[in-house]
Amino acid sequence: MGKDLSQFIRNEAFLDKVVSAEEAASWIENGMNLGMSGFTLFGEPKEFPLALSKRGEKENFKINLYTGASLGPTADQSMAEAGIINLRVPYQGNAVMRKKINAGELFYIDQHLSHTAEEVRKGTLGKIDYAIIEAAAITEDGYIIPTGSVGNSPIFVEKAENVIIEINTTAPSAYEGLHDIYVLKEQGERREIPIYSVGDRIGEIGIKVDSAKVKGIVLSEQPDIPSPLFEPNEETQQIADNLLEFFANEVKEGRLPNSLAPLQSGVGSVANAVLNGMKTSQFKDIEVASEVLQDGVFDLIDAGVVKFAVGTAFSLSKKRVESLAEDLEKYKGKIMFRPQEISNHPEVIRRLGVISFNTALEVDIYGNVNSTHVSGTKVMNGIGGSGDFARNAKITIFVTPSLAKNGAISAIVPFVSHIDHTEHDVDVIVTEQGYADLRGLPPVKRAEKLIEIAHPKYRQQLRAYFEEAKETVGGHTPHILEKAFSFHKNLKEKGTMLFDE
Amino acid sequence: MGKDLSQFIRNEAFLDKVVSAEEAASWIENGMNLGMSGFTLFGEPKEFPLALSKRGEKENFKINLYTGASLGPTADQSMAEAGIINLRVPYQGNAVMRKKINAGELFYIDQHLSHTAEEVRKGTLGKIDYAIIEAAAITEDGYIIPTGSVGNSPIFVEKAENVIIEINTTAPSAYEGLHDIYVLKEQGERREIPIYSVGDRIGEIGIKVDSAKVKGIVLSEQPDIPSPLFEPNEETQQIADNLLEFFANEVKEGRLPNSLAPLQSGVGSVANAVLNGMKTSQFKDIEVASEVLQDGVFDLIDAGVVKFAVGTAFSLSKKRVESLAEDLEKYKGKIMFRPQEISNHPEVIRRLGVISFNTALEVDIYGNVNSTHVSGTKVMNGIGGSGDFARNAKITIFVTPSLAKNGAISAIVPFVSHIDHTEHDVDVIVTEQGYADLRGLPPVKRAEKLIEIAHPKYRQQLRAYFEEAKETVGGHTPHILEKAFSFHKNLKEKGTMLFDE
Repeated sequence: MGKDLSQFIRNEAFLDKVVSAEEAASWIENGMNLGMSGFTLFGEPKEFPLALSKRGEKENFKINLYTGASLGPTADQSMAEAGIINLRVPYQGNAVMRKKINAGELFYIDQHLSHTAEEVRKGTLGKIDYAIIEAAAITEDGYIIPTGSVGNSPIFVEKAENVIIEINTTAPSAYEGLHDIYVLKEQGERREIPIYSVGDRIGEIGIKVDSAKVKGIVLSEQPDIPSPLFEPNEETQQIADNLLEFFANEVKEGRLPNSLAPLQSGVGSVANAVLNGMKTSQFKDIEVASEVLQDGVFDLIDAGVVKFAVGTAFSLSKKRVESLAEDLEKYKGKIMFRPQEISNHPEVIRRLGVISFNTALEVDIYGNVNSTHVSGTKVMNGIGGSGDFARNAKITIFVTPSLAKNGAISAIVPFVSHIDHTEHDVDVIVTEQGYADLRGLPPVKRAEKLIEIAHPKYRQQLRAYFEEAKETVGGHTPHILEKAFSFHKNLKEKGTMLFDE
Repeated sequence: MGKDLSQFIRNEAFLDKVVSAEEAASWIENGMNLGMSGFTLFGEPKEFPLALSKRGEKENFKINLYTGASLGPTADQSMAEAGIINLRVPYQGNAVMRKKINAGELFYIDQHLSHTAEEVRKGTLGKIDYAIIEAAAITEDGYIIPTGSVGNSPIFVEKAENVIIEINTTAPSAYEGLHDIYVLKEQGERREIPIYSVGDRIGEIGIKVDSAKVKGIVLSEQPDIPSPLFEPNEETQQIADNLLEFFANEVKEGRLPNSLAPLQSGVGSVANAVLNGMKTSQFKDIEVASEVLQDGVFDLIDAGVVKFAVGTAFSLSKKRVESLAEDLEKYKGKIMFRPQEISNHPEVIRRLGVISFNTALEVDIYGNVNSTHVSGTKVMNGIGGSGDFARNAKITIFVTPSLAKNGAISAIVPFVSHIDHTEHDVDVIVTEQGYADLRGLPPVKRAEKLIEIAHPKYRQQLRAYFEEAKETVGGHTPHILEKAFSFHKNLKEKGTMLFDE
């Protein structure tokens, strides 16, 4: 490849391990469990999964694939297309893979992102046969320097029988120093996670690995994978404005300072656009304690709104991918990546008092949230870290446009078709219509607030259901079970949730 | 009362504060927020709420009542009957109160029991006007010694504008030393909770209170309130046997030692009977890290199965209430009570790796659990601490008989009518038919396991739904929304979930 390998592999014990991706892929046997780096398309190996997929076109074998979160076209997609995945855990977001999952051709377990490392420790997912980790370098001391995500790589490396490192020779050298790797001991033998303020550095700059366990090193020049991010539009700007109004009111009431509290924002276009909308806000010196750092976070650092941001992975648009090497230098000391078990850990989130906002797919009139399943059956991406944050945050917010599919779908429904976050965990819902502050309210009062932020064209239908449920059934949480999914039924039969269209 | 008060009120600054319950009750104004001690009928004030209820018979006023958990006939029931409660938080279990809640005459917020203290700190529930705390004594140093529960008393005392202490002169003096009171600072300003093994003592023996805040001391001779506990029967013994078989298999597979892991068991007859069934098990030296200590725990200490137990409250049968004074001496150094925020804290549960088992009302074929609502509308007691433990435990187990109402109700249904614990948080379901180990399984494989532990008379119906859903709708989590509540519909129309009866 014409580059001086000793620049990337700085420990001699590793230098003779370089093999082709094809050779590394040939080591994988049918039924093996692979723990792969990668989270929201960042930090994943690319040459190895491509080679494994290629092998899968000719040979009959299946593997179980565990990662940090979603992988991209060279990994999740190529492996799904090759039909070599039996089970995928804990999060995915690729259209081809999603289709296979929903067709029953590929098994998927949708897991809280802070839980996967514990499941690996407990052995619930079997032993990890191979950890395959993208790296920017291997240091003199034998540490793997991850690239644009940490995810579950530390626990995969610790527990794997064999490790394959995919050195990406195009990775900016400034990745070194970005990471804060802290690995928990077994339950019952561990101490506290000593994070008391967002920026506390508690771990090491890389993942310690025993060279004897490293079976091979693959080289890659594959570039980082950008995520498509819609530009903010009128609707997302309105959602952002409503969220900002809520924050402003919290400050006014003396419940939050002007720097708010450590902020977590979900992955995706709506969340990113909402962040974007905060650029011109009154808030200053915000700390971000998130899972994924999107474009919006950097824009907020530039705007002087955010002063420090911690997460476990990037998810960047094409523009930010292109400026990444410069940006890593520019934002040095202002951003940090930890393992997803730590970024999403209940202990840390609760101690710091994080404000969390994530995107909802569907919300019911009592405040239960569906983040994952369309009409209760077809999974989209997965719950991700939304549950880790929602349950433990100081204020738990979900944002969603009130309508989808050009008005055929109302985001507020009588009964959500799948529940990922229960009424016990949801504080505030924001749509472009306004915000519903559900804190301190019993179910029937929550319904009043939530119907108000539904789209006007669905309010009457929602109110009719609610009133009928109160009158004919009653109870603490009035529901007419026979009509609970009437919106979904109408959608299925007539292509819209609107009854009289 | 003929007793030497200085024996109970050992600090002179408090001695002149003794008033009648009627006088103390007269201080309460319409709209006030009361934080009351008490949890599963233990440790609650009794004379004060009785006097307040009496006042409510003649005067028009309503208060908001916040507690640890459920209060008994002299508190929750008398106040509900008097119609003086506007809002009740976070858990209740009284039949009169429940009826009023489900009739819409009394508002209720069903909250994770570890969350209430944070909500008080955040101000979501308004300021606490009065804390009313049952005590065994006030020490020389001005500490309130709680009685048979700690619950939320420390945060109520800290945040209340005024404090009323109800000294129970019949409370055993051995309550002193039972408690381990540790209060968290504000989010963002606090340190870790320094519990690294179940028995670590981290706090003080009582609740520190500023005497200037104590407006009055009420005296009481009201006895502790026993809970009805069904004796174990063939069915609960079979559930216990199945759970023990699961544990035995975990030990055999090397995933658990013979002392298991710190154990949490839910409140109620089934859970207690299951504990009872463990008396003759192979397991030894178990530590209990629970919320409520029921009879079963003491029986297990006697049997040498349990060596130490921590919780936040007692819930005892008549027999154990009668022997309580002796028992407190007998089990000294083997039991400890902490604030419910600590006993149920995600940080502690996750660090210790607790095994949690709680009772489910209803479970669906994909493993979602309803703990609270009958047919989705009428609330029973509340989620309690089940969510705190279920989300964070090392192994999360729910137990339920497969049938209720003489077979008219199946505990396993296609879609639960209310979700308290999502598929993401549930590991194992146990009925008298067997156990379903859902760990590491995608939804469709979970369904196979769960249908197997439904009662035989419902298995065919469940399988028919599942097969039809897979064939006609498909998806990651196959559901036919129009038929998802068909079992509940049949129950409503025909009095049984069984279609062909």
